[in-house]
Amino acid sequence: MPSVSKRGERMTQSPIRSLIPYARDAKSKGVDVIHLNIGQPDIATPQVAIDSLKTYDNAIIEYGASEGDINLRKVVHQYYCDNVSAIDLEHIYVTTGASEAIMFTLFSCFDSYEEIIIPEPFYANYIGFAHTSGVNLVPVTSRLEDGFKLPSPEAFIQKIRTSTKAIFLCNPGNPTGNLYSKEELIEIAQLVQQYDLFLIVDEVYREFCYDDEFTSVLSLSEIKDYVVVIDSISKVFSACGSRIGFIVSRNEQIMANILKYAQLRLCPPMVGQYMAAACFEGRSNYLQEVKEEYNKRRKFLYSRLSQIDGVKIYMPKAAFYIMTELPVEDASHFAQWLLQDFDLDGRTIMLAPGNGFYLNQEHGKRQVRIAFVLGVEKLGAAMDILEAALQQYAQLSTTQKQLSYSYI
Amino acid sequence: MPSVSKRGERMTQSPIRSLIPYARDAKSKGVDVIHLNIGQPDIATPQVAIDSLKTYDNAIIEYGASEGDINLRKVVHQYYCDNVSAIDLEHIYVTTGASEAIMFTLFSCFDSYEEIIIPEPFYANYIGFAHTSGVNLVPVTSRLEDGFKLPSPEAFIQKIRTSTKAIFLCNPGNPTGNLYSKEELIEIAQLVQQYDLFLIVDEVYREFCYDDEFTSVLSLSEIKDYVVVIDSISKVFSACGSRIGFIVSRNEQIMANILKYAQLRLCPPMVGQYMAAACFEGRSNYLQEVKEEYNKRRKFLYSRLSQIDGVKIYMPKAAFYIMTELPVEDASHFAQWLLQDFDLDGRTIMLAPGNGFYLNQEHGKRQVRIAFVLGVEKLGAAMDILEAALQQYAQLSTTQKQLSYSYI
Repeated sequence: MPSVSKRGERMTQSPIRSLIPYARDAKSKGVDVIHLNIGQPDIATPQVAIDSLKTYDNAIIEYGASEGDINLRKVVHQYYCDNVSAIDLEHIYVTTGASEAIMFTLFSCFDSYEEIIIPEPFYANYIGFAHTSGVNLVPVTSRLEDGFKLPSPEAFIQKIRTSTKAIFLCNPGNPTGNLYSKEELIEIAQLVQQYDLFLIVDEVYREFCYDDEFTSVLSLSEIKDYVVVIDSISKVFSACGSRIGFIVSRNEQIMANILKYAQLRLCPPMVGQYMAAACFEGRSNYLQEVKEEYNKRRKFLYSRLSQIDGVKIYMPKAAFYIMTELPVEDASHFAQWLLQDFDLDGRTIMLAPGNGFYLNQEHGKRQVRIAFVLGVEKLGAAMDILEAALQQYAQLSTTQKQLSYSYI
Repeated sequence: MPSVSKRGERMTQSPIRSLIPYARDAKSKGVDVIHLNIGQPDIATPQVAIDSLKTYDNAIIEYGASEGDINLRKVVHQYYCDNVSAIDLEHIYVTTGASEAIMFTLFSCFDSYEEIIIPEPFYANYIGFAHTSGVNLVPVTSRLEDGFKLPSPEAFIQKIRTSTKAIFLCNPGNPTGNLYSKEELIEIAQLVQQYDLFLIVDEVYREFCYDDEFTSVLSLSEIKDYVVVIDSISKVFSACGSRIGFIVSRNEQIMANILKYAQLRLCPPMVGQYMAAACFEGRSNYLQEVKEEYNKRRKFLYSRLSQIDGVKIYMPKAAFYIMTELPVEDASHFAQWLLQDFDLDGRTIMLAPGNGFYLNQEHGKRQVRIAFVLGVEKLGAAMDILEAALQQYAQLSTTQKQLSYSYI
């Protein structure tokens, strides 16, 4: 039998994924698992979008344009001009989710072994995208103690080498919930110009900023040709399963390359694009209400976490995540233990171990990411569980805490 | 400004794509362009699938399973057991179109510079998939004079080197309309065993075999772990824009690798998967009727082409394509001329130049692919145009025929 590819075998699964069998086992034992680990909102997709499917009346679901359906692109173009930055229609392509937008950007901008500097912790799947495209991620570590603020320009400069070709940011941040200020982004823009780097920014959480104004890198006119923005309807419109994302760039060469990769896969999903246009058209009240709901949860979660002994936190400014440090030696072990050996009145919680969001997995070893995509009542129950679990876990012997679980 | 990637710049566009601006110009001059160049059927998607969207009532369009929605996988599993080969549910993953199925297969089975032997002419986008994954395609040329029958085992053996890791077939064939017999496939199976190669077969046209029975490589039990089958609802259910495809393999290692790539992009489009399940559930009469319609067109097209002087043809056995050789020196030039300088009563045709389906583009220089995805009446008009155009083109001077068009 021929062997499968080495690159496929080397592709690592995130620590979140490796907990899934434990969660399944807990559920099969009748334990109710509250998922704090995933960014799947419980907020309803706009009703207008679901309703739009009822009037979908094309006789043939045909191939569409590789750059995306023109109706959707026009609506998104208007949204960008009104809310983000004045761009042209040809600066927007539709992709099959932000995932594809990132893959196309990496293939179009970088050759194998070229390097991208990225603040960590970051969205764990970036590692897989980089692995698939053969690009190297070089982390600049940000710290929980500083609320994961953007590392200094000097910290970036230290990592710049001849093979460095870009800086990659996620703003607002997953998993940090941080929001970079205009001043911080201007510092990055200066680096980008000075060292001749692309600036790629994942802005999929743009609509959820609770305290301060959001600044898109598209609005920094000095670097307009250096910038690629990744976007998606998944989080904004609670439509993760639609797989509709966007690439936005004013750089013609990048867009020309991206179009070739887009043509190769023919077109993004057509029914999803139809529905996405309805989302944007009916967005105004929806977005305001959703943001208020997340903000309520954010404040509640912050308040509850700040009352638990030994938990280190900060107030997240945006998105719907917080990275917290727990009073445990190994948060991955604690997360497994929660699923395998703990319940409070038949319920437990699933956490996302923090080390999955770092390239050096020793970082964030005591951290977990909590997504506040559940209502306040459920979050409250989850915090009761976390509090009780931490108390019980603290009583375990060191040996018990080092016990390595292996899933059979 | 940093330079974009070399791999992106090297990615070639197919000769079909390069004709698109000429078609646009023809249309803007008021010329009606009959598209014989693309595999976009004019057959309606099953009404039951369009109707299924009216009852889609999930409040949230959530992420689904990375391996595909379980409802769809079960329906497809049943279809495979009934019509193709008895496989298990875990041998089927849903992908975002056959395009993604091919990309995942290449990344999962091959490392850069490994080689795949493939009969040419083949679907032009295979070149882009190979380029993206860094895999080398090694062609074995089949000939129009033989109806593009599968090259002999010896022809394959001649191409096998240490870096050879697979044979890739498209059966039924795009662009050839050929169908490989069970005997031919058994010969390939022996090669696969003898030289320890994977066998990847794109079977997306499986349902359109007009004369002989289709044999899936999944039914060849001796090589069951060597096989990966690529599938899609695009052509079968005339739903190209839904972007729903499948990977089918009994090889656990391959499926384990593929799952990692699948997890990276989270899930296939959920609404499309919902609709795809409805397609399979309501398929029986639909597929029979569609096949009869294509068969009628096939016979009509064959009959008309065989009456045109100097056109070389054969009877396609399956799919909805025929590669024909025209009495011209350069079919690409002829195809451009048709769009730029010719019309018959305000109408012209768009052809797919044959060289785009060969790695060595000198092959197939006089050939074109014609897709019979239009009704008999329109095909008749198209053949009138082809006949008149060939007569007029024959009168052009050699200089006029060598005139290189460049699009401004």
